[in-house]
Amino acid sequence: MQRWEVLRVRKTLDELKRLSIQCRGDILKMTYVANSGHPGGSMSSIDMLLALYSFANVYPQDPWNEDRDRIVISHGHISPAVYSTLAAYGFVDRDEVIAGFRHPASIFEGHITRGIPGVEWTTGNLGQGLSAGVGFALAAKYKNKDYHVYVVMSDGESAKGQVQEARRTARKYKLDNLTVLVDYNDIQISGHAHEIMYVDIKAEFEAAGWKTIEIDGHDFEQILAALKIARDDGYPTAIIAHTVIGKGVDFMEDKPDYHGKPLNKEELEKALAQLGVENDVEKYLEMRKKLPIEAHKKVKLYYDVRLDTGKARVYDKATDNRSALGRAIADLAVINDNVVTVDCDLKGSVKLDFLDKERPDRVVEIGVQEHNAAALAGAMSVDGIVTFFADFGVFGIDETFNQHRLNAINNTNLKVVVTHCGIDVGEDGKTHHALNYIGAPLAWYGFKVIVPADPNQTDRVVRYIAEEYGNFVVAVGRSKVEPIRKEDGSLFFDENYEFKYGKMDILRDGTDGVIYVIGSAVPHALKAYEILKSKGVNFAVINVSCPYDLDEEVLRKYSNFVVTVEDHNVLNGLGSLIAQKLFEMRILPGRFIKLGLNDFPVSGDAKLLFEIYGLSRERIAETILSKLE
Amino acid sequence: MQRWEVLRVRKTLDELKRLSIQCRGDILKMTYVANSGHPGGSMSSIDMLLALYSFANVYPQDPWNEDRDRIVISHGHISPAVYSTLAAYGFVDRDEVIAGFRHPASIFEGHITRGIPGVEWTTGNLGQGLSAGVGFALAAKYKNKDYHVYVVMSDGESAKGQVQEARRTARKYKLDNLTVLVDYNDIQISGHAHEIMYVDIKAEFEAAGWKTIEIDGHDFEQILAALKIARDDGYPTAIIAHTVIGKGVDFMEDKPDYHGKPLNKEELEKALAQLGVENDVEKYLEMRKKLPIEAHKKVKLYYDVRLDTGKARVYDKATDNRSALGRAIADLAVINDNVVTVDCDLKGSVKLDFLDKERPDRVVEIGVQEHNAAALAGAMSVDGIVTFFADFGVFGIDETFNQHRLNAINNTNLKVVVTHCGIDVGEDGKTHHALNYIGAPLAWYGFKVIVPADPNQTDRVVRYIAEEYGNFVVAVGRSKVEPIRKEDGSLFFDENYEFKYGKMDILRDGTDGVIYVIGSAVPHALKAYEILKSKGVNFAVINVSCPYDLDEEVLRKYSNFVVTVEDHNVLNGLGSLIAQKLFEMRILPGRFIKLGLNDFPVSGDAKLLFEIYGLSRERIAETILSKLE
Repeated sequence: MQRWEVLRVRKTLDELKRLSIQCRGDILKMTYVANSGHPGGSMSSIDMLLALYSFANVYPQDPWNEDRDRIVISHGHISPAVYSTLAAYGFVDRDEVIAGFRHPASIFEGHITRGIPGVEWTTGNLGQGLSAGVGFALAAKYKNKDYHVYVVMSDGESAKGQVQEARRTARKYKLDNLTVLVDYNDIQISGHAHEIMYVDIKAEFEAAGWKTIEIDGHDFEQILAALKIARDDGYPTAIIAHTVIGKGVDFMEDKPDYHGKPLNKEELEKALAQLGVENDVEKYLEMRKKLPIEAHKKVKLYYDVRLDTGKARVYDKATDNRSALGRAIADLAVINDNVVTVDCDLKGSVKLDFLDKERPDRVVEIGVQEHNAAALAGAMSVDGIVTFFADFGVFGIDETFNQHRLNAINNTNLKVVVTHCGIDVGEDGKTHHALNYIGAPLAWYGFKVIVPADPNQTDRVVRYIAEEYGNFVVAVGRSKVEPIRKEDGSLFFDENYEFKYGKMDILRDGTDGVIYVIGSAVPHALKAYEILKSKGVNFAVINVSCPYDLDEEVLRKYSNFVVTVEDHNVLNGLGSLIAQKLFEMRILPGRFIKLGLNDFPVSGDAKLLFEIYGLSRERIAETILSKLE
Repeated sequence: MQRWEVLRVRKTLDELKRLSIQCRGDILKMTYVANSGHPGGSMSSIDMLLALYSFANVYPQDPWNEDRDRIVISHGHISPAVYSTLAAYGFVDRDEVIAGFRHPASIFEGHITRGIPGVEWTTGNLGQGLSAGVGFALAAKYKNKDYHVYVVMSDGESAKGQVQEARRTARKYKLDNLTVLVDYNDIQISGHAHEIMYVDIKAEFEAAGWKTIEIDGHDFEQILAALKIARDDGYPTAIIAHTVIGKGVDFMEDKPDYHGKPLNKEELEKALAQLGVENDVEKYLEMRKKLPIEAHKKVKLYYDVRLDTGKARVYDKATDNRSALGRAIADLAVINDNVVTVDCDLKGSVKLDFLDKERPDRVVEIGVQEHNAAALAGAMSVDGIVTFFADFGVFGIDETFNQHRLNAINNTNLKVVVTHCGIDVGEDGKTHHALNYIGAPLAWYGFKVIVPADPNQTDRVVRYIAEEYGNFVVAVGRSKVEPIRKEDGSLFFDENYEFKYGKMDILRDGTDGVIYVIGSAVPHALKAYEILKSKGVNFAVINVSCPYDLDEEVLRKYSNFVVTVEDHNVLNGLGSLIAQKLFEMRILPGRFIKLGLNDFPVSGDAKLLFEIYGLSRERIAETILSKLE
């Protein structure tokens, strides 16, 4: 018998039935004690959870065992059911759960949180869990692991389009290691699900090529039998479990009211009596009172990234940064077996063609399904795969804004590499001009944004982020750019250059003022420097590749006449961050000019757009000269 | 014969065949002249477009006729096909299209743009158009109009989950006035669609309760027959049209390469010869050279909002702002027939229950399908319906970030009203704490953000935004708040109060310093004022309900010791905007303290969270006092 056979949970039918009563009691108690939470759905899902955590290969004493089955609970508001199950099986302490639920000092937050033993993924915003499950299932395939992935989700959230995206992806990649359990209680917040929206869950799974099994979600024998079939049938399979919200307490059954409302004292008394469970909530109320008024320490799960960053490539002629990006990713994937990139039907444009040629197996092609792609990439990235998510800026940042916020909450190891940023996109116009690659990720605490200036810096940045655990955005434009050179003509970022996060690059020195510049605007600023110089005006040109972590020393030194230049929304970009930083440093420059976009730009050749929006070499120089007069 | 019978386009089969050649020529010419654009898909869609604009009730001489059929082209990159069709039918000038395509000075942008006669909706980011079509179809129902709505879309974009959300919505609302045409050429950027992702378009339409018809998309008789069936069959119907990318030019057919690449000179010569079209591109190249290097004037379509704002409600006791919000929306809907609210299964929580009770017909219930909801709400709002989109902050802002960006691009008249903002959400935890309701909309140029401080101000704000054409975010918390009172105990926002956009409210005066505060933090700041006063420290408390348009006069006057307080991301919220504004005004306060959230908060009772994150009355006062020592 193998080690996991000994360690895993295995309950008899009688034990399961007994625990299903205990857990229902715990659900009612913890929501009562917290005076908050979701008892209704917890009671419809609880039998499935008990059966699943008993059936799956999970290990209370060794919860992060590399070979464990992954269980994702997508409807994270049924945290009372999840926590009571984990307590019943010894993953966590039962008293701590009941007393601490939803208290700031407790790890048992309102929605389930990655890092609690037995919880693989923080959920709460609905419709995200299946994508995470697909990510874990793909990670297993890449790692040649044969663990199984289970996703438990609600019927209400099945309406999210992202769910259908995830289903199709599972079918495309033949994820036979993926099983879904749908808690089909036909209740969502506003009433009966079938009245809220027309969603034929079974038909949609089948349209996406899944096998389906329908069962009674409160019958342990049926649940266990279905789990066995689903695990072994060689397909992604959905178990659609018909359940009753509030199951087990007569006055709660099939009542939308109890979706998100705990019982009051009398109701609790009555419910616990009906279940035959002792009412010991006073004990927990006392315990809760003793909890400190402070935030619990966050459990930040991560892994040591083992990766060979390979040999830097040196570019000596004009190259688009996206090619340098794609080239470096391909290099990494060739020499490391843990590097994978997720694409959304833009392989050629985001320059994954190098990777696709050299290691086609390392491209996960999701098509036009960005929400699902971003979420599954996040999940893969926490499961040992150094994951790049490549996309155009508008899709990889704007369209997937909340998916990345949730990745950030999950402390993922995701490398969001976006191309076609700024008006450098040109003719495709305003729907495609990504103008918030600096501003938007401010919402995703922990994400670092890097905007490399030329192909050499891009190459080094990609190798840097690959070996650092954590979330990064790397944003580049579309056009070819000359490698940046020193005034003597040698490469600025040469073969000895090492990227250091937070370092500003003083491309040109000058004492009359400074241009802080980023991304596709850098070549224009360098040319403006020449024009100014020809008029006897000496401005420094400083490349700010890390706009979130500004170098105070440099800022202090170069602050007499400050110009910021970016092909980015001027309301939330580099200029905005530098203004705030100088303000905090109590520095008021003699002059301060922010150049960038104030409105949605029109469509047109990028060169013309830089001209029209005041970001071309001539216009930058003119603006500066006009303020000197 | 009615007027529209005379004015509309009606072509014979022979005329259609002739135009299908002319338009193919135009597509190749304009992409050649612009050296950019998407000829391949344009040539697979062109026959459908010609048939559709001929079949539908659209009026080249009266393009915005209120009774016109609405045509949405979802795959906006086939702009060459759309523009050539519009030119062929006299909506726009053919020479201007071919010479100006994708030039900054031309309205004929890279992706089709709302405002060009015959274009109802700006698209480009895929998978959005069907939601817009659903919005137009719903608007027709609300207006008791019997025009039809057509959506043309691609097979590749059918993978977007939002498309399935839109399909289900059409079925739920029995939108028999909606027809979809799918250009099924089986090619997307990276190759054959069926290889990129597993998408069974027909099965998914049918799973969502639609009728489907399959035809040859290059056979005018079949297209016209299908259009007639679809218009009259009493169902939302999808015409799945099998087509060939690059159709009409042998070397372009079924080649992904021509998705987004124009022909070179030799190829163009060859292609035009094959089509039997004269090669007159030199003429257009000359015309293009003469275009000025400037952005074209934006066509900003809007309508005069006619609306009775009703009688303001005055709240004299503690009420949650969301109830004041919901109450005011219900008031407006009762007395006006053009006010509709879109809900995402949160009716009770976002307090649409008033509306649901008094005018249930004015709640569009979309369920857990926020992307679709936001996009269809935007479309409804441009079609004469004053549309509220109600949601929790995390869904109405973060999850729908790009949908609102696209609404902004479309110059919609949308009122995004979000509740449960900030840590006032409390126990639901970080996935539900909306911390970017000020920061995120900076990306949606034109959107104004208003954060009312109490139920009285909330009431007036709702009435104000309803009658102003344009996009607004109104953000409120969850908890009950006392109406704000003057020091004499009378209501601050009393029955005579009128909301004025951009005005700051000086709630308390003081000369030792100032607290600029917003939203759910206001009651805490007012209490901090009392604590400070009891210690002999007099701080002004100023409510900033309009963080994007700060009052310079007030800022100048109150700038000695500045404290900003918000239960919002401190990196992109009120403190950040005030810092930048003061910096621009060249004012350095003696002290500046930004209070807000620096990281994802934990889950817990809102009162405890305000305490833990330094935003409670005591903590605000302590922080200020510690800096005075």
